[in-house]
Amino acid sequence: MKLAPRAHVDPFIVMDVLREANRLEEAGRSIVHMEVGQPATPAPQTAKAALRAGLDTGALGYTEGLGLPKLRAGIAELYDKWYGLDLDPARVIVTSGSSGAFVLAFTALFDAGAKVGVCEPGYPSYRSILKALSLQPVGLPTTHDQGHRLQPQALANADVAGAIVASPNNPTGTMLDRDALADLIDAMGQRAFISDEIYHGLEWGARAVSALEITDEVYIINSFSKYFSMTGWRVGWMVVPEDHVRVMERLAQNLFICAPHASQLAAIGALEGHEELQANRSVYEGNRAILMKGLAEAGFTQIAPPDGAFYIYADVGHLTDDSRALADEILQTAGVAVTPGLDFDPKRGARTLRFSYAGSREDMIEGVARLKDFMASRS
Amino acid sequence: MKLAPRAHVDPFIVMDVLREANRLEEAGRSIVHMEVGQPATPAPQTAKAALRAGLDTGALGYTEGLGLPKLRAGIAELYDKWYGLDLDPARVIVTSGSSGAFVLAFTALFDAGAKVGVCEPGYPSYRSILKALSLQPVGLPTTHDQGHRLQPQALANADVAGAIVASPNNPTGTMLDRDALADLIDAMGQRAFISDEIYHGLEWGARAVSALEITDEVYIINSFSKYFSMTGWRVGWMVVPEDHVRVMERLAQNLFICAPHASQLAAIGALEGHEELQANRSVYEGNRAILMKGLAEAGFTQIAPPDGAFYIYADVGHLTDDSRALADEILQTAGVAVTPGLDFDPKRGARTLRFSYAGSREDMIEGVARLKDFMASRS
Repeated sequence: MKLAPRAHVDPFIVMDVLREANRLEEAGRSIVHMEVGQPATPAPQTAKAALRAGLDTGALGYTEGLGLPKLRAGIAELYDKWYGLDLDPARVIVTSGSSGAFVLAFTALFDAGAKVGVCEPGYPSYRSILKALSLQPVGLPTTHDQGHRLQPQALANADVAGAIVASPNNPTGTMLDRDALADLIDAMGQRAFISDEIYHGLEWGARAVSALEITDEVYIINSFSKYFSMTGWRVGWMVVPEDHVRVMERLAQNLFICAPHASQLAAIGALEGHEELQANRSVYEGNRAILMKGLAEAGFTQIAPPDGAFYIYADVGHLTDDSRALADEILQTAGVAVTPGLDFDPKRGARTLRFSYAGSREDMIEGVARLKDFMASRS
Repeated sequence: MKLAPRAHVDPFIVMDVLREANRLEEAGRSIVHMEVGQPATPAPQTAKAALRAGLDTGALGYTEGLGLPKLRAGIAELYDKWYGLDLDPARVIVTSGSSGAFVLAFTALFDAGAKVGVCEPGYPSYRSILKALSLQPVGLPTTHDQGHRLQPQALANADVAGAIVASPNNPTGTMLDRDALADLIDAMGQRAFISDEIYHGLEWGARAVSALEITDEVYIINSFSKYFSMTGWRVGWMVVPEDHVRVMERLAQNLFICAPHASQLAAIGALEGHEELQANRSVYEGNRAILMKGLAEAGFTQIAPPDGAFYIYADVGHLTDDSRALADEILQTAGVAVTPGLDFDPKRGARTLRFSYAGSREDMIEGVARLKDFMASRS
């Protein structure tokens, strides 16, 4: 049996970092993890309590293909709470994480061979999922000088059938304000616009704007993984135009049957976890300040303050043109795991690193101290 | 925004039955459910206990892309216990249900446009997932006279790049013995053979044979949904050839990140639930006997004793050539929900019905009584 060409997606370079970090830890080294894209905190207590109650009483069989009605209603309420929008729960599709939502969106909107725009730097799995679904990712480069904001003209000119845009963005933390987002949607015309809003709730200045505030003719993708601190639970959601719901329901039923029932119960509970989640948020906010100051003092001077998410994307072109080697040197010498930019930008990422501040306060303080020592010894 | 042609997969006809059954129940009618393909029982107590313990102690973040090592090891042990096989856990890939495994297998093995053989009658989502992934399902009809066993010659002659074969089969319950399965694998030559073994553990005479007993050059798909009674949890697995593992790992990481962590913990617990699961199994076995006798007495005489799974597939060609209308008549008149065969066989399914005996003993007894009355009043 032979693997098909589309099966050969790119490896995550960060996996090499993780593997080596684990090896060092097993050998007794202390490693500070700034490579991971997930909260150190567990699901909120309200989520666990809701699941415990469900375990005691329910059979937890298949749910409706579009998700538990109570969860869909709860998600719709978020749109009122967060954006002041009146959203019909019928347009909410609960998915197996945002990953499941990407698969559904790309399958629903594009036929084999179609070109789909993805920001560079951006989330690496967009490219791989597109490739696995026989679609062609088209890189749309953004620049440090423009705060890594995708320019409407670039999108208008791009030879693509659609595009996916994240705000806040991973790895840059760049956020698009209402005008910038509206201009991008406008530039797409009748072509498909997918708005990845997975980092909403984690913004450090202005409030994040949903594409749904601008138009209903858009796919929104979000998840319980980041703000709600539930990465491993695999619950995300989409909001799609009303006339797409029935087709999406069939597609979701066939491709996934449903999102995990136990996780959906936990997600319903998580919607009530405001206090704990806001406390988590405060930790990230403090971590961000520590890293912004500490990284600059260490000598990582080419960084833009991230508007949201929990990443700092640093241009290290003055230090190296091999981010992979630099990340390895930092890991071996300083005991700090960071992500080479190549995962996010196959070309220019050789001169960038991503630092995650999703970890604990203690880890951030220790990590910054180690990075300062490392850079001092290196210069 | 426009939906792509591949998004338009066929609806499940049983959904209309379900909707109408729910409507009748809400209006106060008592309905016996023989349309559902899932156990009425919850996950075993050992599964729930394992999850409760995990909730108390773990953060439940992302797991390894291929699944928790302990779960992969436990699944590998099953192959010793069930088939006397020594399986390297490195070849086990934990997936988001068998649905996730189908998506991974079809993506990994076939490029856009490829033709893939599916049995008719067979699980309807094979067709839909293939279509959504820009592949072409090719129906391979089986006949009542041949016990719905796919014939090797038919497979050898089929213009397909690969095929998926389930034993026991849904909806027929047909099982392939070692020789029959080996002949099919042989007929495929170098082409891809995917063995859907989701109903293993639920067989009523001879033991189910895994394709892995015959060759390593095969994809095995299985799940915790049926024997382990964990449908809504979305945990399944694949076994793939050793040299496919690394590529599958990347693909799985990108498409799914990981299977739900909480569900993986529960699955580890379920592996210890032997006693409870054997008790469930005894209920199905008794249900099967009640239905075999009762359906025949009612007048559904064209049925073959199912070797495995929890379905009886009845030829009702002597009663109707519109199984959809007959199913609706049975629902409205007798208050029993059954599945029209059209979901499993787009052509000949107009003359078949599927009865599920995954429900409770009481429901089976009541359902048979109602079906007898219905058929008596109809003749």
